[in-house]
Amino acid sequence: MFSDNHKTAGVCYPQGFTAAGVRAGIKKNGNLDVAVIYTQKEAAVAGVFTKNLVYAAPVGVSKVVVGTGTAHAVVANAGCANACTGEQGIRDAEKMATLAANELGCRQDDVIVASTGLIGSNLPMDKMEAGIKAAVKELSREGSVNAGNAIITTDTYSKTLATEVEIGGAEVRFGAIAKGSGMIRPDMATMLCFITTDVDIDQKLLQKALSDATEVSFNCMTVDGDMSTNDSVVVLANGAAGNKRIVDEGEDYQTFYATLKTICIELAKKIAADGEGASKFITINVTGAESFADAKKVGMSVANSPLVKTAFFGEDCNPGRTICAVGYSGVPVSPEKISIKFGGLTVYDKGLVTKYGADAMREVLTAHDIIVDIELGLGNESATIYTCDLSFQYIKINADYTT
Amino acid sequence: MFSDNHKTAGVCYPQGFTAAGVRAGIKKNGNLDVAVIYTQKEAAVAGVFTKNLVYAAPVGVSKVVVGTGTAHAVVANAGCANACTGEQGIRDAEKMATLAANELGCRQDDVIVASTGLIGSNLPMDKMEAGIKAAVKELSREGSVNAGNAIITTDTYSKTLATEVEIGGAEVRFGAIAKGSGMIRPDMATMLCFITTDVDIDQKLLQKALSDATEVSFNCMTVDGDMSTNDSVVVLANGAAGNKRIVDEGEDYQTFYATLKTICIELAKKIAADGEGASKFITINVTGAESFADAKKVGMSVANSPLVKTAFFGEDCNPGRTICAVGYSGVPVSPEKISIKFGGLTVYDKGLVTKYGADAMREVLTAHDIIVDIELGLGNESATIYTCDLSFQYIKINADYTT
Repeated sequence: MFSDNHKTAGVCYPQGFTAAGVRAGIKKNGNLDVAVIYTQKEAAVAGVFTKNLVYAAPVGVSKVVVGTGTAHAVVANAGCANACTGEQGIRDAEKMATLAANELGCRQDDVIVASTGLIGSNLPMDKMEAGIKAAVKELSREGSVNAGNAIITTDTYSKTLATEVEIGGAEVRFGAIAKGSGMIRPDMATMLCFITTDVDIDQKLLQKALSDATEVSFNCMTVDGDMSTNDSVVVLANGAAGNKRIVDEGEDYQTFYATLKTICIELAKKIAADGEGASKFITINVTGAESFADAKKVGMSVANSPLVKTAFFGEDCNPGRTICAVGYSGVPVSPEKISIKFGGLTVYDKGLVTKYGADAMREVLTAHDIIVDIELGLGNESATIYTCDLSFQYIKINADYTT
Repeated sequence: MFSDNHKTAGVCYPQGFTAAGVRAGIKKNGNLDVAVIYTQKEAAVAGVFTKNLVYAAPVGVSKVVVGTGTAHAVVANAGCANACTGEQGIRDAEKMATLAANELGCRQDDVIVASTGLIGSNLPMDKMEAGIKAAVKELSREGSVNAGNAIITTDTYSKTLATEVEIGGAEVRFGAIAKGSGMIRPDMATMLCFITTDVDIDQKLLQKALSDATEVSFNCMTVDGDMSTNDSVVVLANGAAGNKRIVDEGEDYQTFYATLKTICIELAKKIAADGEGASKFITINVTGAESFADAKKVGMSVANSPLVKTAFFGEDCNPGRTICAVGYSGVPVSPEKISIKFGGLTVYDKGLVTKYGADAMREVLTAHDIIVDIELGLGNESATIYTCDLSFQYIKINADYTT
C-alpha cells in the first residue's frame, strides 16, 4: 500500500500541496527546523490536540484555526516547544501564523502552527521570521522530505507515508509526515502529525474521521507514559481530487475513513518503533474484553510497565511482570480466565505461568518485533497497543536533554 | 527518635518477640532467605495487602489469618514470590504456615506467610521445610538483623527501625523490618513490612491505625509505578507492655497512631531512597489542593514520570517535564495558579518557567536528596510523595532478572 516512491512524495503526493523545510538555527545542532506545508486551494481542516491541561501556545492558536473549519497552511518548528511561555508565547505563536500568512497571501487564521522541543523557552522570533520567509520561498512539490526532517527532535528518522484510493470515481491521494519519539502515550504525546489529502469532504465528517482514527492509532501507542504539552494531529483536505463531495457516512466516507485509519495506525507503529532508545517494537493484542476501553486499559498498563519494558529489552522471558501489570490495570479481570502468549508461545494460562521451550522462546525474544497476545476471557472486544522497550539509551537521551 | 541501637533490636525490641533468618537455598546467591518472627503471647494482628487482582498465594492465606484477628508468628521467604502458581501455590503457602505452626506449637491460622521474588515459580518445599525448622530453632531476641536480611531481594540493605513511646503509663515499644526496591508504587508494591509492638490494643483499632498510616506512607511512595502481586504490611501487637488496653480513639490511640505513622513514613522513605538503581531520593510536596486525593494524584503523576525521573538522574533542571506531568495528572489544575520549586528555588510560576541562578540550581541538583514543592493554588489540602530517580542501573537490574 505504501511504496518507497510514495514516501518521498509525502505530504506533496495529493494534488495542490507544496512543502519545504529549512534551517533557521532553532535546533542547536543546526539541522532543518522550520517546515511549511501549503495549499493554494482552500482546505477543510480537522485537528486532534493534547488533552494535557498544560498545553503549549501553538496548540491554543491552532484550535482556533480548526474552529474556522478551513486552512491553507501549516507552519511548524522543532527545537523549542513554546510551552509554559505565558502571554509572550501566545504572541509568538500568533506571530508565526501572521508571518506565514503574509508571505503566502492568506489570513492568519488560515495557518495551523505547531512547535516541538524544549519546554519553557521562548521562540527566537528573529530566527523564526527568517526561517518562515525562506521556507515559503522554497515551497515545492519535492519539499516533503525536508519538511519531515524539520519537525523531528530525538527521532532517529522522519516518519512519512503516502497512498491513494479510488473514491467516487476519482483517485484520492493522501500524504503524511509525523514525528514522535519520547513523551508518547495515549491521548497523544510529543508528537506532531500533518496529513494532507485532496479528497473533497465535509469538514464535520473530516473531523469525525480523524477523531475516530486517532482513537485506535495515536491514542493506542505509548513510549514512556508521559503526555506532552504540544501534541497535534492535523489533516488538510483541499478537494483537488474532484471526487463527488463526501457529505454523509455512506460508502465513500467508509472508504476514506478506512484509508485514513490505516495511515494513522502505520504512523503510530513507526513512532512507537522509533521510541527513544527503543531496541524492540512490541505489539500488544488484548482480546476477550468487555469493551474497547477495558482492552485498551489492560494493554496500556502492560505497555507502560517499566518492568515489562526492561524485561523485553533484556530479551528475558518474564510473564509474571506481564500478568502483574494486567492485574493492576484497574479492569476487573479474572486471573483464572486469562491466557498470555509471547510470539505465539503460551507463557501464562488460567492462573499459572506455563512451561515453554527455551529455544523457541529465545527465538521470539531476540527478534526485533515482538507480539504479545492477552486473552481476558470476558467478552468480545479488543484493542491493539503499540510500544517499545525501555533501554539504557532511553536514560541516556533523557538524562541531559537540556544541557 | 530512632537510634542505631534500636535498629539492631528491630522487631525484637518490643517485649516478647523473637526472630531469626536462615539460609535455605531459595535465593540463587545463597544469602539468608527464610525469616520467622514469633511471639508466644498471642498478638492482635492487622494487615494491608496488595490491591492487584493477580495476587500471590501467601497474600490470600495471610488475609485469612488477619481475619481471625490474632496471630503468633510470621514466616517469610525471599527468592520466590509464589505468585501465578495456582492451586499448588496455595497448598505451598498453607504448608509454610503449617510447618511453622507445628514447630512453634500454635495453629496454622496463627501464622502470617509472605513471599517475595520471582513470579511464576513454585516454592522448593523441601528447602522451605528445612529452612523453617532451622529458623524456629534459631529464634532469639537478637534475630532481627538476620530476619531483615532474609526478606530482601534487590534491596541494597535491609530497612529496620525501632522506637518506644509512653502510652497509658507504660513504655510501649515498636520494631520493624521491611524490604522494597523495584515494583514500588501507590497502593503497595513489592514490599514486605513486618511491624511488632507490645502495645495492648483492640484489633479493630489496630487495623484502623495501620490502614490510615499506610495511606500516607507506603501508598505515597513509588519507584517505577508497578504494583506487585505480593505486597504485605502486617503488624503484630502482643500487649506485653502492660499499658491500659486501648479500646477507643482517645489520647492513647492518638499517641499510638502518631508513632505507627512516623514509623511507616520513615520506612517508606527508606524504601524509596533504596529504589532499584536509585541515585537520588526525591520528596514531592504538593500543597494547595482541594483534597488529599488530588494532591496525591498530582504528586504521583510527577513521581512516576520517566522523563522527570531521568532528568533528576542527569542532574538536569527540567521544570517543563514537571509541570507537564502536573498537567496530565487528571486533576483539574490551572497552570496560571501553579508554582513549582526545586530545592526552594522557584522554577515555574503562574504559567511561566522562571529564570533561576545556574550555580544555586547546580547545588540543588547535585545533592542526593531533592525536594520538589508544587503549590496548586486551589485549596488547603496537601500530600507528600517519596520517590527516586530512574537510572542506567534500574535498567541493568531489571533487564535480566530471571536469567
